[in-house]
Amino acid sequence: MRTITWDEQKAVVKLIDQSVLPMKFQFVELTTHDDVYHAIKNMVVRGAPAIGVAAIYGMALAAREYKGQDLNALKASLAAAGKYLNLARPTAVNLEWGIQRTMKMVDEFEGSADQLKQKILDLANQAADEDVATNMSISRFGAELIADGDAIVHHCNTGALATVDYGTALGVIRMAHEQGKRVHVYVDETRPRLQGARLTAWELEQYGISYDIITDSSSGYLLRSGKVDKVFFGADRVAVNGDVVNKIGSYMLALAAYDNAVPAYSVFPLSTVDFNCPSGENIPIEERPQAEVLNLQFNGENVMPEGASARNFAFDVTPHRLISGLITEHGVLYPPFCRNLSLLKPKGV
Amino acid sequence: MRTITWDEQKAVVKLIDQSVLPMKFQFVELTTHDDVYHAIKNMVVRGAPAIGVAAIYGMALAAREYKGQDLNALKASLAAAGKYLNLARPTAVNLEWGIQRTMKMVDEFEGSADQLKQKILDLANQAADEDVATNMSISRFGAELIADGDAIVHHCNTGALATVDYGTALGVIRMAHEQGKRVHVYVDETRPRLQGARLTAWELEQYGISYDIITDSSSGYLLRSGKVDKVFFGADRVAVNGDVVNKIGSYMLALAAYDNAVPAYSVFPLSTVDFNCPSGENIPIEERPQAEVLNLQFNGENVMPEGASARNFAFDVTPHRLISGLITEHGVLYPPFCRNLSLLKPKGV
Repeated sequence: MRTITWDEQKAVVKLIDQSVLPMKFQFVELTTHDDVYHAIKNMVVRGAPAIGVAAIYGMALAAREYKGQDLNALKASLAAAGKYLNLARPTAVNLEWGIQRTMKMVDEFEGSADQLKQKILDLANQAADEDVATNMSISRFGAELIADGDAIVHHCNTGALATVDYGTALGVIRMAHEQGKRVHVYVDETRPRLQGARLTAWELEQYGISYDIITDSSSGYLLRSGKVDKVFFGADRVAVNGDVVNKIGSYMLALAAYDNAVPAYSVFPLSTVDFNCPSGENIPIEERPQAEVLNLQFNGENVMPEGASARNFAFDVTPHRLISGLITEHGVLYPPFCRNLSLLKPKGV
Repeated sequence: MRTITWDEQKAVVKLIDQSVLPMKFQFVELTTHDDVYHAIKNMVVRGAPAIGVAAIYGMALAAREYKGQDLNALKASLAAAGKYLNLARPTAVNLEWGIQRTMKMVDEFEGSADQLKQKILDLANQAADEDVATNMSISRFGAELIADGDAIVHHCNTGALATVDYGTALGVIRMAHEQGKRVHVYVDETRPRLQGARLTAWELEQYGISYDIITDSSSGYLLRSGKVDKVFFGADRVAVNGDVVNKIGSYMLALAAYDNAVPAYSVFPLSTVDFNCPSGENIPIEERPQAEVLNLQFNGENVMPEGASARNFAFDVTPHRLISGLITEHGVLYPPFCRNLSLLKPKGV
């Protein structure tokens, strides 16, 4: 089941609402590009690949919101919509990638306004299909790294929910499971938004894969105890030197893996690489609302003092020296990442 | 205000109930050593130094529970009570230390049963007084390491609440603040029991010290960003080589500090050193109930899938190579810890 689809009859984008899982499994229907903006900003849709595709659907909705027939006016309103959508979240490059891909087509387009509207929708559907195919390819390459009996620490959610379908890092684990390998996943809860505990645990339940939820700081203990064979996480933006910006906590996890000689892999489609970005230090790190840290209850009781102050950094930078391999749809890349990533640089980027 | 006191009129041990802070500030009254056992096990009282003193009060209650006048029968029931209390939690050595200290006095005692009962109560009161004096000494030594303007990451709760009064690692920060140094504390929340967010933030509010709550995995980002000058945490048991067993998450925090050349200090009274323990790998790590990880709500909604499985390791081992200094009531110890700790070994241990 796809997380993002176009409903032709209703002319809406349908999304699995990730903000209410695992207690409720429900869809939301988005009718305007402003709806898409808020769905991305409020993490109703999250996961770098899913955001990338949602952005193109947002552009398709923006095109339909323009009711006239003037191609130049349509193009101008799309340019404005693209700039707006791009502000929804700053870190994942896939958002920018989806919008730029759309705008490139828009800029080069000649024909009627109605034709352009249809072409953007076709592009969104095509990007959704490509995402699934890409994830299957990523997962097949990655699954070769998993041995029967492996115990794996997985960070955040990188499954079907984070993509259009199948997933990236969690797709790798799922593929190994489907190949008949026995795996056990230590699902770190991934504070503050708890994507691990909420979404990854829920997905693993569906797939019948063995898991335990752990607090984020437990992975260090497990790694030191020799209980972990591999570490997998995704990426929100990858610099050309192989530095990985991903959900907060990835750096400390990769560091603990490195300190215990356990391989750590970052898994992502090539669209997550920012070929204009020399290192992770150049990537903007989103700071999100304090409430995401503070609105926590334990056994039904609030836990933070009233009026407490918090900081909420959503991502961190894992330096490439801590990463054993980058798993993409083109295969597994090993160091030197700078050289091996540059060989995959698409033309014109 | 002391966290543990003896109420002579009611003949009860009074404790601040740490399991309901910061929403409620209330005391519990313990009338039997079994009450003390459960208060320690369920973390109504927590923090290695507080547990050590609570254990001696538990022995004082056990003595009063024996209503006869036969000294040998009293000694036998105290030996049994000590064995029982010692099972409440396995990792913090202070529990064992408190019981052994009591039993040494019991074994050597000659006189009447009533006299022995009073002597154990006197010992508990004396240990409580000593703990406060020890913490003041620790804090004065530690405060010398803090510079005006320092930003500090602090893990778990090591304040007045974790001791009889004033605290260890948080005592150091409090002392620096009382000396007029400006400090800002990044309070990591310390999942699963959230002692940072619940207790440390609450204490810092009382003292008027500037702080922000962060998720545990945010300290890596802050350290890499150059926003942190020092890291402080406590200890539940220290091996003679300087390995520190402390609340889960200490290892990853110390590792991230080390990776960014930020000094990390462990702060504790000498009673936390297990001179019989050669390295951290020999120290038992408590695994606590899954419910402490799973019983979490975000914005009032449960977040973990129903029937989810979890692991809950309460402590981890920070290898001495990651620690810049050990702060005790005898001063700050620097590497080689093995040599410098052995110089402080009490006679007869």
